Amino acid sequence: MCRKEHDVTEAALLRPGERIDDLQTGGYRLIQKPGTFCFGTDSVLLADFAAPKKSDRAADLGCGNGAIAILLAAHRPEIEIAGVEIQPEIADMAQRSVRMNGLEARVRIYAGDMRDAWTSIGREKCSLVVCNPPYGVKGAGFASATAQQRIARQAEISPEEICAAAEKLLKFGGRFCVVYPAQRAFEMMAAMDACRMTPKRVRTVHAAPGRAPKLILIEAVKGGGIGLNWLDPLILKDADGAFSAEYRRIYGIGT
Amino acid sequence: MCRKEHDVTEAALLRPGERIDDLQTGGYRLIQKPGTFCFGTDSVLLADFAAPKKSDRAADLGCGNGAIAILLAAHRPEIEIAGVEIQPEIADMAQRSVRMNGLEARVRIYAGDMRDAWTSIGREKCSLVVCNPPYGVKGAGFASATAQQRIARQAEISPEEICAAAEKLLKFGGRFCVVYPAQRAFEMMAAMDACRMTPKRVRTVHAAPGRAPKLILIEAVKGGGIGLNWLDPLILKDADGAFSAEYRRIYGIGT
Repeated sequence: MCRKEHDVTEAALLRPGERIDDLQTGGYRLIQKPGTFCFGTDSVLLADFAAPKKSDRAADLGCGNGAIAILLAAHRPEIEIAGVEIQPEIADMAQRSVRMNGLEARVRIYAGDMRDAWTSIGREKCSLVVCNPPYGVKGAGFASATAQQRIARQAEISPEEICAAAEKLLKFGGRFCVVYPAQRAFEMMAAMDACRMTPKRVRTVHAAPGRAPKLILIEAVKGGGIGLNWLDPLILKDADGAFSAEYRRIYGIGT
Repeated sequence: MCRKEHDVTEAALLRPGERIDDLQTGGYRLIQKPGTFCFGTDSVLLADFAAPKKSDRAADLGCGNGAIAILLAAHRPEIEIAGVEIQPEIADMAQRSVRMNGLEARVRIYAGDMRDAWTSIGREKCSLVVCNPPYGVKGAGFASATAQQRIARQAEISPEEICAAAEKLLKFGGRFCVVYPAQRAFEMMAAMDACRMTPKRVRTVHAAPGRAPKLILIEAVKGGGIGLNWLDPLILKDADGAFSAEYRRIYGIGT
C-alpha cells in the first residue's frame, strides 16, 4: 500500500488524460486512457486461457496498451514476451507501463504492423503467440468512436493475415491463442488451419447460464493433429446476475 | 390406447428379436432390434435441431431404422423424406416401420450407399438433408459390438464424403444438418465448407451444466454467407441429475 517512493516516477510516466489502473495481479498496474484505449474483459479472458508455461517465449500481436503482455508476465516470472502495436501512441503507453512495472527485461514493445512482427521478433522463435484482434467489419458502426478506437476495433486485418503473422513467429508445436466473436469462430479456425496451425482447444464465453456464446477462445497448435478439446463453458455471470466463481478466479477477486 | 385392430398387422411386421417402441410423437412407433440397432439420443436431438419446414423435401443419409425420418414426418404432416441406409437388414426394418405408421406416401427408404443417394433421390431436389453419421475411428474399439453395430458406428465414410453426398442432394439455399462429436466439429465444418455448404447454425450438447460439450449440432447452408448463429447450449440434465426442461421438451415428456 505504501507507494510514495514511486509517485514521482509514475507521474512522470503519465501523459494528459491517462490514468493508472491496478491489474489485480501481483501488484502490476497499467496506464490507460479512457475514451481512447482501455483493455477489456476479452483481454483478461485470453491471458487466462493462454495458460502460459514457465519457459514460454511469447508474443502478443496487436498488444494495445500492453495489458495481456503484462498479465502473462505477472502470471509467470520467467516468461519473456514481445508486444506489437500498430498505433505509436498506444505502443508508447504500453512501453511506459512496462517501465512502470519494472518489466523491461522481460517485456518488449514494438511499434509496428503485426504482419511484419517476424522482422523484429525473428522467425519461429516463439512457443506462444496470443492475439485479441480487431473484431469489427470495415466501415461498419463506431461512428462516434475516436480514430484510435476505430483502428483498434475495425478489421483492418483479416483472419488469414493474423494467422500468417502468428505462424511466422511460432516454432513447430507452438501455440496460438485468440479471442474472437463466436459468430466468426469458423472463419478463424479455417484461417488457422490454412496456416498449418490446427485448432486444438476451445472455450465458449457466455454472458450468463443458458445464453448463446458471444465470444470464443481458440488455441491452435502449429503442426498439431486433428481433434478439438472443448473446455467447460466460461459463464461470466450467474443466474442471479453476480459474477461467477470462474470470472472471479480469472480476475483475482475474492481469492 | 386402443390398438387392437392393428395387432395382427404389427405382429406380421416384426422379425425375431425385434420390438416396437413408441416415438412419443403423435403416436408414431418404431421397430427396433436391441443388441443390433436402436436409435439413440443423438438422433432425437438432430430431428429437433433440423426444425423442418412445412414444405421441406428432405433426405436422411444413413437413416438406420428410420427414427429421424419418421420423427421429421411426425413433426410436419406435409414433409416428404427419403432415407438411405447401407445395411439391407436395417433398411428393411426402417421400411417396415414406415408401413406400420402408414407413412409410405411421404417416407421412402432406399437400401444403398449414401455416396450414391443422388442416383435414387435426384440431384439438387432436397431443401433439407440430415445425417447422424458414424462417429468412430476405423479399427478402434467396439471389439464386443456386432458387425452391424460396427458398420453403424465406424468411420467407413469420411466427413468429406458425407458432405459431398449431401451437397449433391441439396438445392441452392438448402440446409444440411448433422450431429457430430464436438471433438471433431472443426473437421465437419471444414468439410461442409469445402463442399460449398457454409456452417451457419450450431448448438453444443452438454451432459450437465458446467460440463464441456460432447456433441455438436451443426447446420450448413448451400451457398450461404459467412457467420455462425450459436444457439443456447443444450443441457441434457440439470445440476440435480433430472432431465432438463429442454430435454423434456425435445422428447415430448410432460408436455
